[in-house]
Amino acid sequence: MSVGVVTEQSLTIDTGLRLESGRILAPITQVYETYGTLNAAASNAILVAHAWTGSAHLAGRSSAEDAKVGWWDAIVGPGRLLDTDRYFIICPNVIGSCYGSTGPASINPKTGKRYNLTFPVITVRDMVRAQALLLDHLGISRLVTVLGGSMGGMQALEWATQFPDRVCSVIALATTPAPSPQAISLNAIARWAIFNDPDWKKGEYRKNPKDGLALARGIGHIAFLSDESMQAKFGRRYAARDGLFDFFGKFEVERYLNYNGYNFVDRFDANSFLYLAKALDLYDVALGYESLQEALEQIRVPLQLFAFSSDWLYPPHYTEEMVKVLESIGKDVDYHLIPSPYGHDAFLLEHETFTPQVKAFLERVTPGGP
Amino acid sequence: MSVGVVTEQSLTIDTGLRLESGRILAPITQVYETYGTLNAAASNAILVAHAWTGSAHLAGRSSAEDAKVGWWDAIVGPGRLLDTDRYFIICPNVIGSCYGSTGPASINPKTGKRYNLTFPVITVRDMVRAQALLLDHLGISRLVTVLGGSMGGMQALEWATQFPDRVCSVIALATTPAPSPQAISLNAIARWAIFNDPDWKKGEYRKNPKDGLALARGIGHIAFLSDESMQAKFGRRYAARDGLFDFFGKFEVERYLNYNGYNFVDRFDANSFLYLAKALDLYDVALGYESLQEALEQIRVPLQLFAFSSDWLYPPHYTEEMVKVLESIGKDVDYHLIPSPYGHDAFLLEHETFTPQVKAFLERVTPGGP
Repeated sequence: MSVGVVTEQSLTIDTGLRLESGRILAPITQVYETYGTLNAAASNAILVAHAWTGSAHLAGRSSAEDAKVGWWDAIVGPGRLLDTDRYFIICPNVIGSCYGSTGPASINPKTGKRYNLTFPVITVRDMVRAQALLLDHLGISRLVTVLGGSMGGMQALEWATQFPDRVCSVIALATTPAPSPQAISLNAIARWAIFNDPDWKKGEYRKNPKDGLALARGIGHIAFLSDESMQAKFGRRYAARDGLFDFFGKFEVERYLNYNGYNFVDRFDANSFLYLAKALDLYDVALGYESLQEALEQIRVPLQLFAFSSDWLYPPHYTEEMVKVLESIGKDVDYHLIPSPYGHDAFLLEHETFTPQVKAFLERVTPGGP
Repeated sequence: MSVGVVTEQSLTIDTGLRLESGRILAPITQVYETYGTLNAAASNAILVAHAWTGSAHLAGRSSAEDAKVGWWDAIVGPGRLLDTDRYFIICPNVIGSCYGSTGPASINPKTGKRYNLTFPVITVRDMVRAQALLLDHLGISRLVTVLGGSMGGMQALEWATQFPDRVCSVIALATTPAPSPQAISLNAIARWAIFNDPDWKKGEYRKNPKDGLALARGIGHIAFLSDESMQAKFGRRYAARDGLFDFFGKFEVERYLNYNGYNFVDRFDANSFLYLAKALDLYDVALGYESLQEALEQIRVPLQLFAFSSDWLYPPHYTEEMVKVLESIGKDVDYHLIPSPYGHDAFLLEHETFTPQVKAFLERVTPGGP
């Protein structure tokens, strides 16, 4: 069952946050949604962390007339994987985003203008540290789990390493201990596409630089799909109305990238896209530690990790590297490689596949329910 | 030994060529280089076909002062794989290119202006049909072999299927019977990057649209490398002089893409890049046949095929699909999967690995030499 109509909430902390870069971001606002009811002991909370272009609107509808449900509605609600009859689910929008939390498109109260490129570079660790402040406000000292895919999985790893006392477990899907040079290079191309757009104006645009941002998003779609899923979806089909020998004729896969790229322009801020791409590229669970092992030694709770066979953005072998280290130092890690043709997007599409495993894991870490 | 100083030659055919699209391209000029000596029977000729941004300058130096040798010098010369003491080697520049053969940057004699986008869309089959005219001019009725990698491999396949009587064998490396939707999508992004550049002016530029073309080339480099080779070359190293938290700070892999992208602008014409990208995407050995099998049934000579394990642009399994069909219809195919970390670029870098196999193949198809 769906959670029905939900209302976005918001918390502003005037003292802000000291960032990893050493800069202070103040004030910080975080918007978030919650589903279910926090119990008296505040012991039934689960945080769901979103990916790059996600929002706090995880589940349900924003109004009774809303045609679309939240981005991962399928797993949240009474009787669903994250059962709102048992758990209190929180989904915060990350700082740096353009969906309500403080980001480059926010007004800097000191100047009365948008931050744009005066916004400080933020990291995934900063996002999670902001979320910890939100939990303080909600009176939650410890989470049942943090669950997330892609950048959401990075946040789960940061919860496990930076706040080992504030989680009972974490679940990370389709993520990586640190993006590979190939993953970085795809984001580099996306950045370059925006920088090339004369409408970007070094971040001081009034209207989103649409050609550059659409192209940047197009690159993302290549990374999120797989050759296998593209074969199934488009193959080498040529657009029906285009001539094969027309200079501007397009393959169906090309039309898909164009169409989705230009759609994205209406819903996401270019500077936000750039800051979050930066946070992704900089992400390294071992940053500030001597080694990956030293970082993972901080973890004191069970971890569940999922990788997807056709995910070439964050390929399984990088997760497996982390699993190997975790096992070698005796950590409680439950790893699953899910065979899937859907590439990186699999984490959003294969929920039926991993639901039994996540359910069993949650039973184990909170026997009999929270 | 190197072939020393070589001089580019040129052939113009005034009657031109009727293209696959039905349009006539006339006149056509093809520049080419040759190495070694054609024997009296004209039976010792090998054609080497270049890739996307290659040229006729396969081997040797263009002048005694030339600092650089040709693009595949390592395999051409006395005692080398393509032994110029035995073979007469021809390397033609493909039509559509900007390195001397007729392409979009050529002057249309009918208008006195550059063709630009009035240039007709050409195919790999058109390139090969132009090369057949060049062989007529050189008095060569049959080639010992056609050897090429990537788009050069596509040309080899076209020689085998379209001109089975004019070759004794073909050798194709790092190629594909037809680019996959993922490969097409990478070219789609490259095209889009150029189309987005206001300096492109729908092809009517005076100076190459540098930002768009550099970005397009950057995408190419991602496709030509592999995550494995990027790990070895750059890892996650950050540019030494850039701050980790600088908005414009760059990873080394990002600098590499930028540097090589902008270098490319000085050496390749944007419209030519677009027309050849189109030819690559349209390439399908089975175009005009009922099936891949029917296309491959045209072949009447031994084929040697190489794929490289980390080539994700034209992954080995696509070559293997073709091998399976060839074997099922009893064709003489000698297939090798070369383990290599170098991605698509491997065909240029792994020549020491495949030299013994190519040598053995050439001995077999021309026992005792031509």
